[in-house]
Amino acid sequence: MSKNYNFSPTRFHYTFGPHEPVLKLHIGDKVSTKTDDISGFESEMKKLHKDKMHTGEESSYFEGNPLVGPFYIEEAQFGDTLVIELLKIRPNRNFAYSTHKPGFGALGIEDFDFGPTGLTKSIPANKFCWSLDNIKNLGQLELSKRKSKPIEISLSPFLGCIGTAPRFGQVLSSIVPGEHGGNMDCIETKTGTKVFLPVFTKGAYLFMGDMHAAQGDGEICGSALETIGEITFRIDVLKNKQIHWPRFEDKKYIMVAASVRPLIDALRIAYAELINWIVNDYDFTKWEAYQLVSQVGRIRVGNVVNPNYTVVAKLPKKLLNE
Amino acid sequence: MSKNYNFSPTRFHYTFGPHEPVLKLHIGDKVSTKTDDISGFESEMKKLHKDKMHTGEESSYFEGNPLVGPFYIEEAQFGDTLVIELLKIRPNRNFAYSTHKPGFGALGIEDFDFGPTGLTKSIPANKFCWSLDNIKNLGQLELSKRKSKPIEISLSPFLGCIGTAPRFGQVLSSIVPGEHGGNMDCIETKTGTKVFLPVFTKGAYLFMGDMHAAQGDGEICGSALETIGEITFRIDVLKNKQIHWPRFEDKKYIMVAASVRPLIDALRIAYAELINWIVNDYDFTKWEAYQLVSQVGRIRVGNVVNPNYTVVAKLPKKLLNE
Amino acid sequence: MSKNYNFSPTRFHYTFGPHEPVLKLHIGDKVSTKTDDISGFESEMKKLHKDKMHTGEESSYFEGNPLVGPFYIEEAQFGDTLVIELLKIRPNRNFAYSTHKPGFGALGIEDFDFGPTGLTKSIPANKFCWSLDNIKNLGQLELSKRKSKPIEISLSPFLGCIGTAPRFGQVLSSIVPGEHGGNMDCIETKTGTKVFLPVFTKGAYLFMGDMHAAQGDGEICGSALETIGEITFRIDVLKNKQIHWPRFEDKKYIMVAASVRPLIDALRIAYAELINWIVNDYDFTKWEAYQLVSQVGRIRVGNVVNPNYTVVAKLPKKLLNE
Amino acid sequence: MSKNYNFSPTRFHYTFGPHEPVLKLHIGDKVSTKTDDISGFESEMKKLHKDKMHTGEESSYFEGNPLVGPFYIEEAQFGDTLVIELLKIRPNRNFAYSTHKPGFGALGIEDFDFGPTGLTKSIPANKFCWSLDNIKNLGQLELSKRKSKPIEISLSPFLGCIGTAPRFGQVLSSIVPGEHGGNMDCIETKTGTKVFLPVFTKGAYLFMGDMHAAQGDGEICGSALETIGEITFRIDVLKNKQIHWPRFEDKKYIMVAASVRPLIDALRIAYAELINWIVNDYDFTKWEAYQLVSQVGRIRVGNVVNPNYTVVAKLPKKLLNE
Repeated sequence: MSKNYNFSPTRFHYTFGPHEPVLKLHIGDKVSTKTDDISGFESEMKKLHKDKMHTGEESSYFEGNPLVGPFYIEEAQFGDTLVIELLKIRPNRNFAYSTHKPGFGALGIEDFDFGPTGLTKSIPANKFCWSLDNIKNLGQLELSKRKSKPIEISLSPFLGCIGTAPRFGQVLSSIVPGEHGGNMDCIETKTGTKVFLPVFTKGAYLFMGDMHAAQGDGEICGSALETIGEITFRIDVLKNKQIHWPRFEDKKYIMVAASVRPLIDALRIAYAELINWIVNDYDFTKWEAYQLVSQVGRIRVGNVVNPNYTVVAKLPKKLLNE
Repeated sequence: MSKNYNFSPTRFHYTFGPHEPVLKLHIGDKVSTKTDDISGFESEMKKLHKDKMHTGEESSYFEGNPLVGPFYIEEAQFGDTLVIELLKIRPNRNFAYSTHKPGFGALGIEDFDFGPTGLTKSIPANKFCWSLDNIKNLGQLELSKRKSKPIEISLSPFLGCIGTAPRFGQVLSSIVPGEHGGNMDCIETKTGTKVFLPVFTKGAYLFMGDMHAAQGDGEICGSALETIGEITFRIDVLKNKQIHWPRFEDKKYIMVAASVRPLIDALRIAYAELINWIVNDYDFTKWEAYQLVSQVGRIRVGNVVNPNYTVVAKLPKKLLNE
Repeated sequence: MSKNYNFSPTRFHYTFGPHEPVLKLHIGDKVSTKTDDISGFESEMKKLHKDKMHTGEESSYFEGNPLVGPFYIEEAQFGDTLVIELLKIRPNRNFAYSTHKPGFGALGIEDFDFGPTGLTKSIPANKFCWSLDNIKNLGQLELSKRKSKPIEISLSPFLGCIGTAPRFGQVLSSIVPGEHGGNMDCIETKTGTKVFLPVFTKGAYLFMGDMHAAQGDGEICGSALETIGEITFRIDVLKNKQIHWPRFEDKKYIMVAASVRPLIDALRIAYAELINWIVNDYDFTKWEAYQLVSQVGRIRVGNVVNPNYTVVAKLPKKLLNE
Repeated sequence: MSKNYNFSPTRFHYTFGPHEPVLKLHIGDKVSTKTDDISGFESEMKKLHKDKMHTGEESSYFEGNPLVGPFYIEEAQFGDTLVIELLKIRPNRNFAYSTHKPGFGALGIEDFDFGPTGLTKSIPANKFCWSLDNIKNLGQLELSKRKSKPIEISLSPFLGCIGTAPRFGQVLSSIVPGEHGGNMDCIETKTGTKVFLPVFTKGAYLFMGDMHAAQGDGEICGSALETIGEITFRIDVLKNKQIHWPRFEDKKYIMVAASVRPLIDALRIAYAELINWIVNDYDFTKWEAYQLVSQVGRIRVGNVVNPNYTVVAKLPKKLLNE
């Protein structure tokens, strides 16, 4: 019989890998838990980050996104697909920060070496505090030239990070997206979406974190509306079903998220894997699927600031189920 | 007083450049004309392509998109912006072709040299005929495994090509998109959109062509629902207003279309020019515009198969006009 | 009977295209002529640039590399290969300039739109004057911290620009390299090299210019040791021999120069065309040629600052002629 | 007092990370050991690979390059630079294999997902056996069309893999190059070269492997002359000297090896770090170093087939030491 867990994190991880599990789950189990933001800005959970300093996991200054987990899934083995049904992704504080950093972001020179290149980087540091109304789902930012009236945007909260332990026994930083998911920064990983992830290691080792209240395509300044929040998810496993890249499904679309550099290759992989999906699970020949995706496929850009860029390719489900 | 023209093309061009004008227009003039498709498939206008063979313009086998024009705009000078209000973009035949070509398209090996590399290219040739219902705005394709019921998609007709004579006195093939517009293959250049193009040469030399009844993001197989149709547009000129890349505006969005390789640079330029637009024409500081676009900007991929790739960056107008 | 010409330019072109020829040549003819540098710095020929302003060729401010030509080759037709034997490439003044420009060069943010992006570009403007000793073949630059002794480098003068009228009747700026050659900035186009160029238009329309006394791989600051000089070359035509990209041959190597973005594709094309060359002209199977090039091929980077990047792939001739 | 070790590997690793050390070394210590090739082809050491299957390190089928180590260096701490003086890199068998794999290599479609994309990949599988003469330093391959006389090339044996435990506590596959070195496939890591690597973790955790008897620039088929051999190296540590990317030094050049995608960014980083080196360790201003590298710098391409591409930027030492 499936269980419901209410899990309070007592430490955070900064890498995806087969670390000591915080919970062992079975198919059908449901978990509610909480995330913290990348800087622990004014967070109750900030002290948990400090504990990390004693774990020896990190050997250098950068911290990355704090991750909740890993959740060990008893039925998951190499060659299976892990399914995470996102039942709730919701901020639980009334503000979010976004920061501009010199040497970071898609429109400046990248800080290739995480240190001084001695060359050009001239985006000035800035920190913006957006106020969040999590009932009306609205975010507001005061602008220097419009003091009487802040700008107002719709919120669409999602998880920047969701992933499993990577292939080949690798351990990857929580700023890296890849085949295992990771720091994809895709607005699609929100309430109502089913996330499919490849299982590379027995137990899968699921991690989540990095809640964003909203984000533009590409996250070009390198920082979204960074906040903390509550998440609830349910676990499933597709046995002997191997996927190569993360997949998403919501009411309207099937989607594939590929994360590599350069950007064009992320687009190519996402479309190629979408075509594979259509050919394998629906009644299409390969070249007709290719033609269909050429005429109806849509592209969304997740991020262009992380070590790999993320592209989502999508197709309306109604064309497939007729 | 503005005039209305009904122009029947008597030849097509295969390059953007300061060729002999077919009409001389003034601000406010309205033109109705027709386009042909890239292969003149079963078109009444096919013989006009043959005439081309005598013009000496092309020296080699590839033909590219047949272009209507050039239209010479009397008021347009270097440093101005040409505005084309697209009043009607509508197919006038009941079918469209899409072709797969070995060595072409984003998912195969590119045929880098327009000739045999002797290496890998294995996408098989194919030609798909879609039927078009231009009243209901629906396209249908029969699939080999679903003979009883064809797949049905919504149509959204647009111009694959719209552009001016390029910078520096250059003459560019009608398969190339760039600063001058050209073969952008953007679904945004449809009925109801205002297109803004830089003027590099006195008279601007406007060309249009390559009507698509529908197309997926990126046009990955290299061919959309290629068809022919009727277009109506009205001309305006913004004097002493210099833009660096094509811009679009419709009821909901302001948009910039940048065309270069690699894809990431097209995205960077489109976003940078969108930020410039916001800073220059609306009441925003540079770094607040950068923050806003980071959180609310959207990306659309026009094509990833032409000599330059096209990316559209967009922002909802309602955020700007408050 | 072959003729020798001594040609003094009376104007320069800033685009590659089928312009009015300055000389009509036949196979075997030899030409001696002169080039000017990009800015006409302190050049006797500077006034010839001014004449250009009356030709109407350029419609906007950028000038590009001044080109000598076009030379019309009577025997050259579409589908042939033009051969230019470089008999002498030698500076004829005792200095060269190199400039650093904000917003230009491979290590800064590129000035994508030839105008202000409003974003980051922080490489300071600088102009370095190198002294040239064209007898000893040495260049010297005084450094601020080593005033007693300038730095001294070997010179290796070459043509930054050599090309024909481009494919499809296109006219391309003299800053653009491509299939037609153009602004490749390859140190290989020096005294003693045979340059093979595709003929796209009857007459070929050969242009040359942009002499560099020396240059690092990639020309990363966007400017080499820019100088003026004397060139002598002899013409040949390979009838019905079609090549896809420029080829070079000297005493030691056969070489292919491919110019596209991104850089990886220039490398791929250069290697693929080198393999084609080996398979077609020497006695190798395709996959053995591929294996040989994988183990012995060498790459040189021409430029990473022009609108297309140029990569040279090369193989020692002694492996082929055994 | 420094020690000499003769170390026989008893197992191989397939990831770079802070694994159980095989030896603990001090500054000045010298080690002689052996490497195996990627497939354990006809190697005495093949059984050591089988042992790996019990270690649980790898969870999936791909094996990567077998690595000797890790060697723990007692004096090395985060923020230091590890120096490995390569005293001997020499094959100890008389043959090498190179393989062509469908879906792998720079000229075919990449097998993006380590599994079937279902799309195009048409390079046929092939296995070439080169004979090695390790005294005369010559390699020979029989060609199908030249049976009487094999092709003969010079050998230049080097280590494809050399690296430390990666940044942030990450564990990376032995097919990945990066800041830590890793699978760079650079012909520069040969007898007589000093290799400088960043230390990210106390002890540094040095690994080596993947001996190649020769290799073309880029390793375009994905496989060099893969062999096994003997290596001897001496250890040093530069305390409180932080480098961002691997550096090499031989008699003639100082060099930086950067490994990222896309290729242009590897080139940019390598040049930027080379400029940093010149500015910090020699008597140059930043912009004069930039000018010098622009005119004299050389680029070598290590690999364009691994998850990151490797580019080496180099400058002759004689220009610096004058």
